Amino acid sequence: MSRTRTLRVQCGRSTRALYVLGTELAVHLHRSAPPGAKFFSVKCSPTVQYRIENSPQDGGGETPMLTEKSILFITMAAASEQPGESKLSVRFYGQKMEKVDTAVVHLTAVEISLDVDADRDGVVEKNNPNKGSWKWGPNGHGAILLVNCDSEWTIKKKVDSESEEITRVSDLKDMSRMLLRTRGPSQLPEGYKLVMHISQTDSEGIRVFQSRVQSGGASQNLLKKIIYKTFLKEFPLVLSNKVLSQEVPYVGGVAVTEFFVEGLRFPDKDFDGLVTIHLSVLEPIAQDFPETPIFTDKVVFRMAPWIMTPNTLPPVEVFVCSVSDNYKFLKDMKKLVQQSGYKLTICHEYMNRGDRWMQDEIEFGYIDSPHQRFPVVLDSPRDRELGEFPYEVLLGPDFGYVTRVPLHEEVSSLDSFGNLEVSPPVTVNGKSYPLGRIIIGVAFPTTVQGRNMTKVVQDFLWAQKVQEPIALYSDWLCVGHVDEFMTFVPAPDRKGFRLLLASPDAAYKLFRRLQQDGHGQAKMFDGLGDTEEIPLDDLLSNTQLQNENSYVQSCIDWNRDVLKRELGLDDDDIIDLPILFKLLEENYRAAALYPDMVNMIVLGKNLGIPKPFGPKVNGRCALEAHMCSLMEGLGLRCTFIDDFASYHKKLGEVHCGSNVRREPFPFKWWNLKL
Amino acid sequence: MSRTRTLRVQCGRSTRALYVLGTELAVHLHRSAPPGAKFFSVKCSPTVQYRIENSPQDGGGETPMLTEKSILFITMAAASEQPGESKLSVRFYGQKMEKVDTAVVHLTAVEISLDVDADRDGVVEKNNPNKGSWKWGPNGHGAILLVNCDSEWTIKKKVDSESEEITRVSDLKDMSRMLLRTRGPSQLPEGYKLVMHISQTDSEGIRVFQSRVQSGGASQNLLKKIIYKTFLKEFPLVLSNKVLSQEVPYVGGVAVTEFFVEGLRFPDKDFDGLVTIHLSVLEPIAQDFPETPIFTDKVVFRMAPWIMTPNTLPPVEVFVCSVSDNYKFLKDMKKLVQQSGYKLTICHEYMNRGDRWMQDEIEFGYIDSPHQRFPVVLDSPRDRELGEFPYEVLLGPDFGYVTRVPLHEEVSSLDSFGNLEVSPPVTVNGKSYPLGRIIIGVAFPTTVQGRNMTKVVQDFLWAQKVQEPIALYSDWLCVGHVDEFMTFVPAPDRKGFRLLLASPDAAYKLFRRLQQDGHGQAKMFDGLGDTEEIPLDDLLSNTQLQNENSYVQSCIDWNRDVLKRELGLDDDDIIDLPILFKLLEENYRAAALYPDMVNMIVLGKNLGIPKPFGPKVNGRCALEAHMCSLMEGLGLRCTFIDDFASYHKKLGEVHCGSNVRREPFPFKWWNLKL
Repeated sequence: MSRTRTLRVQCGRSTRALYVLGTELAVHLHRSAPPGAKFFSVKCSPTVQYRIENSPQDGGGETPMLTEKSILFITMAAASEQPGESKLSVRFYGQKMEKVDTAVVHLTAVEISLDVDADRDGVVEKNNPNKGSWKWGPNGHGAILLVNCDSEWTIKKKVDSESEEITRVSDLKDMSRMLLRTRGPSQLPEGYKLVMHISQTDSEGIRVFQSRVQSGGASQNLLKKIIYKTFLKEFPLVLSNKVLSQEVPYVGGVAVTEFFVEGLRFPDKDFDGLVTIHLSVLEPIAQDFPETPIFTDKVVFRMAPWIMTPNTLPPVEVFVCSVSDNYKFLKDMKKLVQQSGYKLTICHEYMNRGDRWMQDEIEFGYIDSPHQRFPVVLDSPRDRELGEFPYEVLLGPDFGYVTRVPLHEEVSSLDSFGNLEVSPPVTVNGKSYPLGRIIIGVAFPTTVQGRNMTKVVQDFLWAQKVQEPIALYSDWLCVGHVDEFMTFVPAPDRKGFRLLLASPDAAYKLFRRLQQDGHGQAKMFDGLGDTEEIPLDDLLSNTQLQNENSYVQSCIDWNRDVLKRELGLDDDDIIDLPILFKLLEENYRAAALYPDMVNMIVLGKNLGIPKPFGPKVNGRCALEAHMCSLMEGLGLRCTFIDDFASYHKKLGEVHCGSNVRREPFPFKWWNLKL
Repeated sequence: MSRTRTLRVQCGRSTRALYVLGTELAVHLHRSAPPGAKFFSVKCSPTVQYRIENSPQDGGGETPMLTEKSILFITMAAASEQPGESKLSVRFYGQKMEKVDTAVVHLTAVEISLDVDADRDGVVEKNNPNKGSWKWGPNGHGAILLVNCDSEWTIKKKVDSESEEITRVSDLKDMSRMLLRTRGPSQLPEGYKLVMHISQTDSEGIRVFQSRVQSGGASQNLLKKIIYKTFLKEFPLVLSNKVLSQEVPYVGGVAVTEFFVEGLRFPDKDFDGLVTIHLSVLEPIAQDFPETPIFTDKVVFRMAPWIMTPNTLPPVEVFVCSVSDNYKFLKDMKKLVQQSGYKLTICHEYMNRGDRWMQDEIEFGYIDSPHQRFPVVLDSPRDRELGEFPYEVLLGPDFGYVTRVPLHEEVSSLDSFGNLEVSPPVTVNGKSYPLGRIIIGVAFPTTVQGRNMTKVVQDFLWAQKVQEPIALYSDWLCVGHVDEFMTFVPAPDRKGFRLLLASPDAAYKLFRRLQQDGHGQAKMFDGLGDTEEIPLDDLLSNTQLQNENSYVQSCIDWNRDVLKRELGLDDDDIIDLPILFKLLEENYRAAALYPDMVNMIVLGKNLGIPKPFGPKVNGRCALEAHMCSLMEGLGLRCTFIDDFASYHKKLGEVHCGSNVRREPFPFKWWNLKL
């Protein structure tokens, strides 16, 4: 990346020049030559190398002929120890080789490199040749930034990126290290300086702090020591949206100045995630004139995307709400989670204010870089009584927070995050999605009316790029969430998972078989008490219900076709679960007739499934038995949880009432081939 | 692109299904089978083809065994003539091959294709397999849209895209034809319909009209005939930002329905230029339920970028202003333009209101597609007295208009389009720019203060993508325009052009030679009258002037280095012109000391150059003689135009006071490899 810079020299006066290692100075000799000059000779310190172009050697080897195009190229191999210690002089001669005039240049060589972790190994290497660009893939390159969206604040909580100061050294771990490596004399020649700068657009995405902790470069050990000292003020802000350009110190000798780059915003519709930081050497001209940038180094970062975690990833922590009427549900959940060996966190009523829909207010994801990784909760614009939970409870040290709030659109039920899921990794027609694909539910694009997920959230999801979203049709449901008719469970074979789909056809199939086997008087909701029991014979003879479920099946089939196409699934990757729906009179939209088993919580090999209260055959619920037979082949254990009164009757189930934070993918997003 | 759709059939009732040619229907037989069914057989009309998966032939060749995974795939080879004319029935048998039940499907086959000119030959082909995506390059594909930014309005002028109606058929030429080709029965089965739809985001970029002119597809001949009939109302609006989805007619038999797609906005920071139009077949469910899209075809368009034209392209029309004091200038320009064989258009004082800077208010460019092309003027946010000229005079039939107005930023002198130029085609380190690169002038990015081109204009220029811009440093100049120190002229050799740069060094070189040759008393501004003459001896002994020009040269050298790097130029591609500058006392910014010869108008091989009024040698201006000697080798003719009083003294020259509309590139922008 050798850059050539034009250097002007003048006869009769000595010129000083700063030379940056790796570049080249070009002197147009004819421009500087005195009138009558025909030949020239060059002398220089041993530290200086030169070559001459467009000058025939007619004047003898030592005194080439001067032409209009004669150019002297100067390079130096090592940094200077003193300013101006190297010298080069050009002596001009007339026609008869008489000396006419001399131009002298005093040279100072410095080595300058702005460095980042462009090879993504967690360590800032020296002058990576690819540091100025960004490329996806395992053979790619380019440094990575995290949005500093967690909170190290202990007293008055706020997201770290909202503050222009670092108050805890632990906050530095969430930033990307950037080193300015220099080598040269104890100081630059007078008036020269180093300036770091960013564009106005990029300043909306990043902030740069300098570390004063150790001028020779803060080591990891030192950082660890300081991490426990709180409220350090040794990290002044260098660049921000208010300061686009600022001088940074030049430290003599072999020096490393440490900077920390903080990410401020996630990729979005108007932000592709790339930002550039420049470091320029400025040459003084004169007072009142802007200094000239004579060398610029640059580094490029990409903001890490927000990544969702599918059911196939190992759980870490399960979240449920405690409300006045869900004691039994909580007890069952506690048991399931503890048996499975995960952490259960209960959100109590003072915080949830009666809102039990833990799935709908938040979506857990994470951000990842070679140097740091932490979970990030996406807060839904739903904002019902649970609205404060993600910010007040989840946000904290190494736990990030992000939200999107629509400015003009109305928020609908489709903005709840039961309507936001993600598939396990898939390969579709040769294209691989190692982080899976996001799944949301919307209205048919062909309808004039209909509910949708708000545009700001959709734009955010699409802009993350690494889990290309699929839009399903969920507006046919009263609540309108994709988790009402689909989920994914891990499987030991095939693609590593199965797609489970609610299926009225499968339910009728099962019930008709039971009827045929003589269980026509077995009852749905047997012994539930406050709910009317329905004998299978009655259920199967209800043509209105049949018609409604025929419609529901066609809606699910539509989604089934889309999922097969967009996830590259075969029929054998899909399992139909026997679930019936009914249409609500007020809006002709669907809700589960009995607890919707597909709306389950997936904890490794343990499934927490809404207890369906189906017809009993030989004392055992036929729906549970069928469900178990379907799942057992995959090595999955079914636990049926009674959510009838506390969730099902309120149009939700186990999944709607819980949330799971999971391990991140082992796959690194920057290795994606996009 | 065979798409599979799940079809549900039911025993005991006949199902009707619409089949779209090229797709596949999948019937999950087990779902529909009656209890006890073990085998099945399929019968169908000869128009129907089927295959069966996952059914061992244990029941004999004609009656495969029914398994849980048995699937019947249905295709049809030709469109139906009557609705429901084809029939397929599935007969289910019990264990002992006794007939249990039968499911019947009545099929209607239709052929549907939404078509565009995806192969970019100006003709809408049939069902191009690549119509749903867009790819750059000579082997690329994807249809092209123009922003309908000209005006066919004769009375109350407005840009066509600002109106939601077509009032002249000539306006259709500026839109892209899109055809809906269908083949099938005289009407669709009851309740089925065709709907065209776009996303909300895309609706900001396009509008779709239907043509009722000829149901079988309007031929070009017919269009030509109608073009002279004004104010046709035969083109109803189908889709817009108010109507995202609308039914379009299904015409029976072999039919072509014609649509016209209108582009509304240029690519910009928040718009990559791609838009998608969908055509769906909707299947009725029941009253009060949204119809289900059972087939969707889509086409993708890219909005044509705005393209600038470099000096190397043939001129078409030259524009200058007539003001109270530029009679002589006008006369000289008229002569030059007429001799060169181009059209001269004079903007008179009632329109320019004394503003003579024709270069600064506008930039000519064009938009291009396989079916239509026209010039488009970019109106600068400068908006001085010439502000109304581009809209009131230039905008018209097949002459487009676009502007960008900053919301919050202040407009500076750097927003004038003397500060917006474009290079001829170049190749840089193997990367080719067959449409050249845009060149603008800004302040050093390292300075805190300094003037810049406004962000909305910069964003617009960058978003066009096909002439990737280069930012030079022009803030050192008082007026601050790149055309004050650089231009391009055509050349018969090398890269087909030379970059001309103003050069104080070259001027001093020339003047010192003259002095040496005994012309030290020859005078700058000889005989100009109201300007003080300066003998060369005095000029050369003025050390303040030398220092100022040394600074100017370093500023130009900085730009020279950038231009060499970004345009891939060698020193031999650059010619230095002898021009001196001075710094203005009020702001230390530079202006030309004598008429700035680089600020020329380039008309093919004829150059209109500001008459420099340099020192006379043997009765001839030495600057003119030098300039001629430099240009003659390239086959260029120099005409020196006296702009001293009317332009130079007001800090501008010939280029600032003129503008040239040029032929478009022969190279098609969509053939770029981006």
